[in-house]
Amino acid sequence: MSPLRRNQFNVKSITSRDNPLYKRIKALAGSTAQQRRSGHALLEGLHLASAYLDAAGQPETCVVTEGALTHEEARDIVARIEEKRVVVLPDTLFGQLSSVVHGVGMLLLVEKIDAALPARVAETCVILDGIQDAGNVGSILRSAAAAGISRVFCAPGTAYAWSSKVLRSGMGAHFLLDIFEDVEPADLIARLDAPVTITDSHGAVALYDCDLSGALAWVFGNEGAGVSQIWRDAVTHRVTIPQPGGMESLNVAAAAAICLFEQCRQQR
Amino acid sequence: MSPLRRNQFNVKSITSRDNPLYKRIKALAGSTAQQRRSGHALLEGLHLASAYLDAAGQPETCVVTEGALTHEEARDIVARIEEKRVVVLPDTLFGQLSSVVHGVGMLLLVEKIDAALPARVAETCVILDGIQDAGNVGSILRSAAAAGISRVFCAPGTAYAWSSKVLRSGMGAHFLLDIFEDVEPADLIARLDAPVTITDSHGAVALYDCDLSGALAWVFGNEGAGVSQIWRDAVTHRVTIPQPGGMESLNVAAAAAICLFEQCRQQR
Repeated sequence: MSPLRRNQFNVKSITSRDNPLYKRIKALAGSTAQQRRSGHALLEGLHLASAYLDAAGQPETCVVTEGALTHEEARDIVARIEEKRVVVLPDTLFGQLSSVVHGVGMLLLVEKIDAALPARVAETCVILDGIQDAGNVGSILRSAAAAGISRVFCAPGTAYAWSSKVLRSGMGAHFLLDIFEDVEPADLIARLDAPVTITDSHGAVALYDCDLSGALAWVFGNEGAGVSQIWRDAVTHRVTIPQPGGMESLNVAAAAAICLFEQCRQQR
Repeated sequence: MSPLRRNQFNVKSITSRDNPLYKRIKALAGSTAQQRRSGHALLEGLHLASAYLDAAGQPETCVVTEGALTHEEARDIVARIEEKRVVVLPDTLFGQLSSVVHGVGMLLLVEKIDAALPARVAETCVILDGIQDAGNVGSILRSAAAAGISRVFCAPGTAYAWSSKVLRSGMGAHFLLDIFEDVEPADLIARLDAPVTITDSHGAVALYDCDLSGALAWVFGNEGAGVSQIWRDAVTHRVTIPQPGGMESLNVAAAAAICLFEQCRQQR
């Protein structure tokens, strides 16, 4: 495979909607449940594709549109992928795979990165306790990766972290983190060697007065119901974010960002 | 109107989809553009209805389903609204008005709260410079209200603040703030008497090292393009949020929360 040939993208095209690979990707694209069952994820757009290649290596398949191959940034990404893994689609077929309306037509089919629950968790980590909104999950993953946290545990009821919407709002954070899904709280509590910390509006210590310099297991709860009882029973620190305004609540992803970066500030 | 009669909800019912009020609300519900043109907003669900009544008084119309009238919290809210403003719909008709799939069927039709641009802005305020995602706009409004900020200015290109999605994610923050829309940056800059402050990843002062104890005009930019040139030209403070992780970016609503609450911390 010469560099010249690579630059010409001498790759296979799919033109029929009956092609088995096309049918498989279309079925995955239409169903988060099916993505979850099969352990695969679809990464849409150039930013996610590039972040994946930087962090994780070759995808199973890269699907690009004919139009995308005229786009320089897309061509640069395709040039990083082994030829046998690339397929070109007409724009009309691609449109049925993607939830992104505008943008350059590129999609990576990848295996979800999965890891076994560690035997012991002694570093700062984040636990998502039933966070339902995909945008909130993506935003918290992004904040955690930016704060230098390496592990996020998702309890049952949390939005599927590898869904297209969470991937999009995570902006590549998925590839900088170890994300554990369907983690039963009791299993994790038994392995935790860091104080469980939750935010609470009543009777708690002001975030800024709490010593956050050591490792903490931050638990962020469901948008409506908050942190569940099993985590409340395991809690070491209950912190409150002082809110001088009349509003007595914050979006959970905003609250998580404030907490994680107050910890960063104290650890500088 | 005796209290007894109020509790029986002796209010008018709409049973035909040809009813003019029903048709008007349905047209508004189907089009954010039409809501914007007519200066009206639709508040869905009990939480927003209750927050509106607490802060702003009587709505133009309250639409409830027959089912909602069996729900205690909904009945308590209806009891706070003048009878002549309440209409009851069968669940099937209501379904065509609401984007909320689950939940108690209640919707308030209200006039958007509008105010003229103040002559001078000398207190801490927030400027949304083309933030497109409704969830991000709602989350920032909520953080601003929680931080005790009273004015938010939206430049052209920002998601319509009174759309159903922004209202839902704002969770009532709209009624604690003065929100100004379609604000031309040059008009606002001429009235600003507080230093313009933006976040920037390069060559800026660490947020925690910047004196945030005075009034600031925080500008948060578009999710992709960032803060626009006119605001960059007007800037006084460029701050950066130190990010010890490998990720070099944060969701804009997360970044806004970190900035506004670091200011709260410094002002304690």
